[in-house]
Amino acid sequence: MITSPHNPKLKLIRALAGRAKERREHGAFLAEGVRLVEEALAAGWPFRFVLYGETLSERGKSLVETLKSRQVETEQVTDKLLGEVCETESSQGVLAVLELTPLPLPEPLNFVLIPDQIRDPGNLGTLIRTAAAAGVQAVFIPPETADAFSPKVVRAGMGAHFRLTVASCQWVELHELLTGFSVFLADAEGQVPCWGADFKSKTALIVGGEAEGASPPARELANVTVNIPMPGKIESLNAGVAGAVLMFEVVRQRNEAA
Amino acid sequence: MITSPHNPKLKLIRALAGRAKERREHGAFLAEGVRLVEEALAAGWPFRFVLYGETLSERGKSLVETLKSRQVETEQVTDKLLGEVCETESSQGVLAVLELTPLPLPEPLNFVLIPDQIRDPGNLGTLIRTAAAAGVQAVFIPPETADAFSPKVVRAGMGAHFRLTVASCQWVELHELLTGFSVFLADAEGQVPCWGADFKSKTALIVGGEAEGASPPARELANVTVNIPMPGKIESLNAGVAGAVLMFEVVRQRNEAA
Repeated sequence: MITSPHNPKLKLIRALAGRAKERREHGAFLAEGVRLVEEALAAGWPFRFVLYGETLSERGKSLVETLKSRQVETEQVTDKLLGEVCETESSQGVLAVLELTPLPLPEPLNFVLIPDQIRDPGNLGTLIRTAAAAGVQAVFIPPETADAFSPKVVRAGMGAHFRLTVASCQWVELHELLTGFSVFLADAEGQVPCWGADFKSKTALIVGGEAEGASPPARELANVTVNIPMPGKIESLNAGVAGAVLMFEVVRQRNEAA
Repeated sequence: MITSPHNPKLKLIRALAGRAKERREHGAFLAEGVRLVEEALAAGWPFRFVLYGETLSERGKSLVETLKSRQVETEQVTDKLLGEVCETESSQGVLAVLELTPLPLPEPLNFVLIPDQIRDPGNLGTLIRTAAAAGVQAVFIPPETADAFSPKVVRAGMGAHFRLTVASCQWVELHELLTGFSVFLADAEGQVPCWGADFKSKTALIVGGEAEGASPPARELANVTVNIPMPGKIESLNAGVAGAVLMFEVVRQRNEAA
């Protein structure tokens, strides 16, 4: 059992809880809580190791047993030390360090999401979760957006990170990757109402942050700007909500065509 | 300038920041921050009074001047005391106590939302904000859902509370109010895919909490259960997201019919 705060595993975890740079350098990220660790295991995600506390629920105990039987390195730690490195009180005594190896890009790509300048981790996590539900194949994270593998974003993603490709990208790479795509930029002042846009061919959606709207490189990448018609008296939507309405409009159009 | 923590206005504010019961008994609720108070003013919402701190932005100063010119009672308070009663650091030195008088029910009603067992204030506020954008006329809050006028819900609503009717309701009242409505319950196991449902006639949407699904009285009120088809590998959506997809499907169908 780990009883010293100077334990190297705890040091690594403290680093991974911090800046994106640390996660990139160590090639790892954190997943906290029984449910999230179960999701990682179910998806076959590569584990580095798992720490577990002294007090576990039945479900937590059974998860640790399964991890051991699959040769995942597990180690017990005092509840106090685990509590100090966990972000939430809902860690439920289980904390995994996972390899930061992005899933491969599916082929052929025909539905991708680009969250542009999304700084709020809850919004970004919700967008990734919704993307996984809507059958988006890849979420490309441009430089101005929050790191998709920070603990808060992973938590809000509810396991979506293990199910679809989430990859950091420079804008110049996106131009190359998205050759042959229709790139739609969500914009309250957009040219086309979203139900008039044609989402049946290869579609990339760019959803911007609330505060500043779309960035110049996002505008440059986009072929069309689309708006969500709003009959009500409020003209702005939460970025997670705007993204969801557009992603499920893609699903609807493709359902209809099928 | 208010300099004593025992000032009766501060006492009232502390009470209103707490439980729903206090807000009902005092017939008032709080709106924090320049933007939210501007929204209340623009919507013509009745004010009880406004406190402002010693340090204000230009926009904050101009807001306080406008409030004074409209005969709203305003009083300065030390930054320290204001900081102690404000929920967020983003109060920006302005805190309003508003009358808890619900907007009248629009006639005829044809589009309402019922958030069922939504306990997370951020989710509830986002649902109310999305409802205002989608042209929902009234949001009915059943007993099991969080109080819509708590500071966190009002903040997440971003001014929507001042634009559409948000009213607490017993289920028995809802049965009466919604005579002649098609009442749709969002449910992952629902009978009808949402794009196959007919939302053109009088529509009530019930969106349930994530944890427990729909409550028995919600199931009793509903005529039809609808699902959101999800091609992806994740089967659950955030409640705010599920509500948004459904509300904007109503907008789409009515747009098409118009």
